[in-house]
Amino acid sequence: MAAATNAGHVNINSDLGESFGPWVMGNDTEVLKIVTSANVACGFHASDPVVMMDTVKLCAQNGVSIGAHPGFADLQGFGRRVINLTIKELEANIAYQIGALQAIAALHGMKVTHMKPHGMMANMSAESPEMSEAIARATRAVDRDLIFLAQANTEQGKAARKHGLRVAEEVFADRTYTDAGFLTPRKEANSMIKDPAKAVEHVRRMIDEQAIYSTSGKRIPCQVDSICVHGDGPTAVTVSKAVREGLEAAGIRIVPLPEMPSLRH
Amino acid sequence: MAAATNAGHVNINSDLGESFGPWVMGNDTEVLKIVTSANVACGFHASDPVVMMDTVKLCAQNGVSIGAHPGFADLQGFGRRVINLTIKELEANIAYQIGALQAIAALHGMKVTHMKPHGMMANMSAESPEMSEAIARATRAVDRDLIFLAQANTEQGKAARKHGLRVAEEVFADRTYTDAGFLTPRKEANSMIKDPAKAVEHVRRMIDEQAIYSTSGKRIPCQVDSICVHGDGPTAVTVSKAVREGLEAAGIRIVPLPEMPSLRH
Amino acid sequence: MAAATNAGHVNINSDLGESFGPWVMGNDTEVLKIVTSANVACGFHASDPVVMMDTVKLCAQNGVSIGAHPGFADLQGFGRRVINLTIKELEANIAYQIGALQAIAALHGMKVTHMKPHGMMANMSAESPEMSEAIARATRAVDRDLIFLAQANTEQGKAARKHGLRVAEEVFADRTYTDAGFLTPRKEANSMIKDPAKAVEHVRRMIDEQAIYSTSGKRIPCQVDSICVHGDGPTAVTVSKAVREGLEAAGIRIVPLPEMPSLRH
Amino acid sequence: MAAATNAGHVNINSDLGESFGPWVMGNDTEVLKIVTSANVACGFHASDPVVMMDTVKLCAQNGVSIGAHPGFADLQGFGRRVINLTIKELEANIAYQIGALQAIAALHGMKVTHMKPHGMMANMSAESPEMSEAIARATRAVDRDLIFLAQANTEQGKAARKHGLRVAEEVFADRTYTDAGFLTPRKEANSMIKDPAKAVEHVRRMIDEQAIYSTSGKRIPCQVDSICVHGDGPTAVTVSKAVREGLEAAGIRIVPLPEMPSLRH
Repeated sequence: MAAATNAGHVNINSDLGESFGPWVMGNDTEVLKIVTSANVACGFHASDPVVMMDTVKLCAQNGVSIGAHPGFADLQGFGRRVINLTIKELEANIAYQIGALQAIAALHGMKVTHMKPHGMMANMSAESPEMSEAIARATRAVDRDLIFLAQANTEQGKAARKHGLRVAEEVFADRTYTDAGFLTPRKEANSMIKDPAKAVEHVRRMIDEQAIYSTSGKRIPCQVDSICVHGDGPTAVTVSKAVREGLEAAGIRIVPLPEMPSLRH
Repeated sequence: MAAATNAGHVNINSDLGESFGPWVMGNDTEVLKIVTSANVACGFHASDPVVMMDTVKLCAQNGVSIGAHPGFADLQGFGRRVINLTIKELEANIAYQIGALQAIAALHGMKVTHMKPHGMMANMSAESPEMSEAIARATRAVDRDLIFLAQANTEQGKAARKHGLRVAEEVFADRTYTDAGFLTPRKEANSMIKDPAKAVEHVRRMIDEQAIYSTSGKRIPCQVDSICVHGDGPTAVTVSKAVREGLEAAGIRIVPLPEMPSLRH
Repeated sequence: MAAATNAGHVNINSDLGESFGPWVMGNDTEVLKIVTSANVACGFHASDPVVMMDTVKLCAQNGVSIGAHPGFADLQGFGRRVINLTIKELEANIAYQIGALQAIAALHGMKVTHMKPHGMMANMSAESPEMSEAIARATRAVDRDLIFLAQANTEQGKAARKHGLRVAEEVFADRTYTDAGFLTPRKEANSMIKDPAKAVEHVRRMIDEQAIYSTSGKRIPCQVDSICVHGDGPTAVTVSKAVREGLEAAGIRIVPLPEMPSLRH
Repeated sequence: MAAATNAGHVNINSDLGESFGPWVMGNDTEVLKIVTSANVACGFHASDPVVMMDTVKLCAQNGVSIGAHPGFADLQGFGRRVINLTIKELEANIAYQIGALQAIAALHGMKVTHMKPHGMMANMSAESPEMSEAIARATRAVDRDLIFLAQANTEQGKAARKHGLRVAEEVFADRTYTDAGFLTPRKEANSMIKDPAKAVEHVRRMIDEQAIYSTSGKRIPCQVDSICVHGDGPTAVTVSKAVREGLEAAGIRIVPLPEMPSLRH
């Protein structure tokens, strides 16, 4: 049971390496001081081989574990548009991106230790057993030791476990949840948590109780292995920093994914 | 010494998996009956994740070993245009493409066992120690067991050996050579060998003597581990087939690259 | 009324210029002997600036009028995958592609005289007033003289008329129709007409009666300005050729779109 | 003679619309307050249809004339890498990009009135009569009324005039020149002018005398129709602003390219 084994530990992850060619995105240097695991874009929705190489190097320097962050092949839409791939196309796209990052990581003596789908691929697979199984199957074929970082309470984790992968489940530091345990849609007024103090409290409660609390107060038990934070916008970094500091102040150890007690071999 | 250890063995390689999306190129089914190793395009100058997956599967079914065939990121120009990358960009591009194919190969339980640069990247690196070293360095970082399939007598082999990689050197079945040991430029009348009988004789002599013979008859000693054949155009397949049959008739064993005596661990 | 004004005339159109870089698709030389208008791919789902230039030249030499054939930006999926663009993105993509072809056409002294959406963009817009209006609006902004070549009885034609464009409606030579007036889905056994004689009869009846006939015999009145034929596969060219010859034998004049009586200014 | 006809007038141009998908580049809002003509990226080295549409709209709102800014098809390299295109490929690429922008401009009722090559395409063509002629030929075929904005004293202007296009020649506000009249290479210490006061003086002298002055004081007579300014980095905007204000203070009228006395029809 994750709740027990994770006692006193949590991971913090963020999407990194989302620049492309001459275009810079995000504030990776700042975010790398906060997170312990990075989801690294693989060139399909963002990044390119050189950005990936630089990102891996920065992660190595900061002791941050790296994960592949594959997305739909759509730079212009940043992987956030619906694109209907066949199951075979999805498998091939997943394997291709993980492998590309594994090899780039090797240039700096690093190893890819987890994977997490990006954007619309993540959203669609969260609700689709068929997509989640294709992603899990391809991931396992490439490296059965990869940890699957899944949105808590979605099809992603189920499929990954079914295919024999270790699963870490994540909750969001700056987003609220509905009674169904899903993220409150961004259009709704209360979807974001912008107050650092509230974010800390929100996250601590989820870790302590290994449960999500909805905006109406409903408790949805789940595995809380990792906190997803964002680095885009000054608020995001402030909130993320506060979360890290709040958790450390509470004596919680913030560790890279492979060092989470529940995920150790 | 290759000449000694290779006695009675040779490899035949060809570029495969050069289709892209809905566009078919080449005659992979026919060529796979002839070759024992395939250089598989990795999505930068040709191919895409699905074509790569299909190609790997076909290779597996035919007992053909696979190699990464990275090229410049230029689908429209098929990797045949000069593009000046920095050394860092080149390393990142090489690693990315090898890794992508390694992961796709894993989907069908296959392993990438060699690598060979494509098109203009190959031509430029053949003459450039700096480019060849970058390619060798990146290749070794990704997998030190990869065999580097080099154009005979070029900077490619030198750099690969310097970086501790096993090197296989290739000659062409349907191309002639200058006194300097380089390919006769395609514009010149006698650059191609279209007569199957002549191609067989040409290849046998190179294997037997572990040397290239120029059009003027000059002998240039070199290591002849692999014969490169082509599959585009009906003549190419006919010549390739004749070469395979001619070599077999002469008692030469045609084997995948990792089974060449000189390349065994 | 189209039925009256078109008496004795019809246009034949086909999608052309679908090669890309080194990859050849279709049999444009043959198809150009059959059609009087070409829908020219614009580089998003197929083609590139050089292929467009060559295609325009071939059309000029064959007296074939040219139209822009914009699609989703998805070479790998050939514009046949669902991609959800915003209305603004759709407008920008349509204008961009038409403009690109207009300028390429100018290199050979040609003029783009019609437009027809491609693949999934066509399928989705056929049922979506919102998408069809965006496409019509962008088309009109670029050139109000462009003829909109629409799938008969769909939202495309309605929207184009609403935005003040001349509309030509097309039926298919080698496809059957449902009672609702839509194409029989390709999965169904009777979706294709492969017998040249039947295709000729099918097309003649639609032209003579300015109506579609469903597989069950239902008559759906519509405007029949153009017959869409295909060039992929030997059957397609045979059927297309038979249709052209059958119509000519029946005394029907096959003309470029701008010369259709109903579409003249 | 430009010197005479331009008396008291000058144009200020800058490269704009260089964002791509989710990635923002530059400070277009600020730069649009300074320039009177914008060179708008066309989707090959930067930008996409939506960014182009937004850029055109901003130009319209600011009374800034627009020009096509075509480059090599290389988003990752931002069009700054050497890519060797054939003359035919170059012509097709130029026409395609100009046409695309013309159509996007039409969505906001704007007209493309000039063209200026970007990055490495500009650098290579500045020294190559063959490339400059191809660019001029394609430009003229698309629209013979386009003003060709050329780097002063290069092959670009010669070729454009030879092909019957109106030519505007530009000098740089923040760059120095060699005795040969070329830009001092960026690697050299004195290549940039970062002091706003010096930039104003530098520009005023070039306009007043219709000549370039090298760093060693050599006078190279040339046509000075337009001042190129940059918007990347805070220094650039400060210098650009100072140049605009300095010229206005000196009574020089800053006008869009089509309103330059020497370029009026």
